[in-house]
Amino acid sequence: MDNFQDIVKPTLILNKERALRNIERIASKARKSGVRFRPHFKTHQSAEIGEWFKEFNVKGITVSSLDMAIYFAKNGWNDITVAFPANIRELKKMNHLAEQIQLNLLVESKETVQYLAQNLKSAVNIWIKIDTGYRRTGIQWDHFEEIAQLTKQIEQASSLTFSGILTHSGHSYKAVLKQEIKEIYSDTVSKMKQVKERLISTGTERIEISIGDTPCCSIVEDFSEVDEIRPGNFVFYDVMQLAIGSCSEEDIAVAIACPVVAKHEDRHEIVIYGGAVHLSKDSIMENRKRIFGKIALPTPTGWSSILPDCYVCALSQEHGIVKATDDLFGKTKIGDLLMVLPIHSCLTVDLMQEYHTIE
Amino acid sequence: MDNFQDIVKPTLILNKERALRNIERIASKARKSGVRFRPHFKTHQSAEIGEWFKEFNVKGITVSSLDMAIYFAKNGWNDITVAFPANIRELKKMNHLAEQIQLNLLVESKETVQYLAQNLKSAVNIWIKIDTGYRRTGIQWDHFEEIAQLTKQIEQASSLTFSGILTHSGHSYKAVLKQEIKEIYSDTVSKMKQVKERLISTGTERIEISIGDTPCCSIVEDFSEVDEIRPGNFVFYDVMQLAIGSCSEEDIAVAIACPVVAKHEDRHEIVIYGGAVHLSKDSIMENRKRIFGKIALPTPTGWSSILPDCYVCALSQEHGIVKATDDLFGKTKIGDLLMVLPIHSCLTVDLMQEYHTIE
Repeated sequence: MDNFQDIVKPTLILNKERALRNIERIASKARKSGVRFRPHFKTHQSAEIGEWFKEFNVKGITVSSLDMAIYFAKNGWNDITVAFPANIRELKKMNHLAEQIQLNLLVESKETVQYLAQNLKSAVNIWIKIDTGYRRTGIQWDHFEEIAQLTKQIEQASSLTFSGILTHSGHSYKAVLKQEIKEIYSDTVSKMKQVKERLISTGTERIEISIGDTPCCSIVEDFSEVDEIRPGNFVFYDVMQLAIGSCSEEDIAVAIACPVVAKHEDRHEIVIYGGAVHLSKDSIMENRKRIFGKIALPTPTGWSSILPDCYVCALSQEHGIVKATDDLFGKTKIGDLLMVLPIHSCLTVDLMQEYHTIE
Repeated sequence: MDNFQDIVKPTLILNKERALRNIERIASKARKSGVRFRPHFKTHQSAEIGEWFKEFNVKGITVSSLDMAIYFAKNGWNDITVAFPANIRELKKMNHLAEQIQLNLLVESKETVQYLAQNLKSAVNIWIKIDTGYRRTGIQWDHFEEIAQLTKQIEQASSLTFSGILTHSGHSYKAVLKQEIKEIYSDTVSKMKQVKERLISTGTERIEISIGDTPCCSIVEDFSEVDEIRPGNFVFYDVMQLAIGSCSEEDIAVAIACPVVAKHEDRHEIVIYGGAVHLSKDSIMENRKRIFGKIALPTPTGWSSILPDCYVCALSQEHGIVKATDDLFGKTKIGDLLMVLPIHSCLTVDLMQEYHTIE
């Protein structure tokens, strides 16, 4: 526990070696498949971690807000896709960015395209957001007529360049088997290719396909049927990705070190300083129990394997309640640290805002 | 909507008039009951809003972390209770604060008391955290022997002054009727008084009782059986408090203005820029539907009444999905703002970090 002596409050610990291995794995598959790797930086939101990607020849990135795009543009990235339906109220930021970098925006309505066509002052690339089954947002993939009309509208606007069609198969996060994830990938690609063919048949020439979820990008080996992949979560992974089979336990690159502040023998519960404002309220169900995080012990090189049958069972603003086995309960003292592996690393990292690497 | 023209992204809007009325209501009940009003500042975490409380003769405050205590100490507060089990790893911060202000800490184990007794360099007030039924943390109220021993241990330590017994009846947040909340209050007070009597019988003289949840403090009129109340959420309230009857709709003092970025006619869903990183993933169930926020329209003076049958049905990192009625769907345009009333204002405000008042 020597590495952690200075840790006094909930602290995000990053295993850089694992993160680099996670990046290398996807980068290598993308290279072999001959597709562009445009990682989603919303997971780490860190200029420093962004630098690690440059070693893997990453040139363009994905973010989820214009503010994040501004941050990374300031840190030297000059080709950024904002993977969120273009928010026309942020026109000033779009114009500001489009002057400096290659800005790529998502649209899914004629109202938005019309507004951008009339108000953008510099050239911007435009992707049409397609819904291939997640049902969050995007134009339903088989609304071919609507997609074709939007494409024409984009092509006619002088400041807009049509890049292609983009989707996020977020329903893969609800898969429970690797086979299911592979099927979601095949289904996604099949639908996107049908859209592309229909657009070609109406006279559009250059149409790229961009896909983006971590489960599919982790499990599928060959992406040669698409042009671009945009996973984000894979850099750290988390308990949710472990549960659906996207990663192994040894791939999880972040844990939150949390001080033990109380123990309750009667119910074998340990109270940690680490609550909803640190971990987020994201949870998974496992064996009919709601789980807000899994538990490991600190080690000189990071953290141990996940302790079976130990988990965060409840969270309030600052408190976390850990269900402990006899063994964990017996050996844990007040003032110790427990390591919590997060359910959803993107939300946890967004909350924590600061990293400590093991080194 | 003139007030909101400059709003381009999810923005926390505060109705100061309502917040002041909420503060006044509890302050006045406390005054009439002759008890100390020590509001919990974790809900707003703002020095500026903290100032508003001074007009109501508030001298001491409650916070949920030592970092928050340091922040408010810097802003002129000199009597602060950290309502979280004392985290012995943060000894340096405790000593730093105890030198400057009246610091009040919570304990619930002999290990923590021993550590504080040996390591604190300035005088600190100590409360014993009691569990009266919430089952989160604290010593079970009827473990009289354990409580008495801990009291003795505190009394014997030269740097520690025993203040009394403190509880948070957080189970009141799960109540569904006002009557239930009143019963929880009576039960809490009855248990705390039994603990106090037992401690008096073992020779302890000065024992205060501190209680703290917003539902009880909102619904109960007379607090004269306790010495101190510490509610926090009441300053803003939220949809959860409305659902359990702690407040009326006109008491809710915060809403998040969220830009509309997409519409889905087939399922009457509106996509807003406003996700888990803005609202938090806290939710309530209502008519078997999971609800992450309720919807109102912007008005020149803030926001309208809650729109019936409209609600946030799903959240991802930046996206919110709003289920809309025919009426709302029909009149909402891309680029409009919708006002989201949060489920749990404490978590939402923690995420948003910045306020805009209506004025």
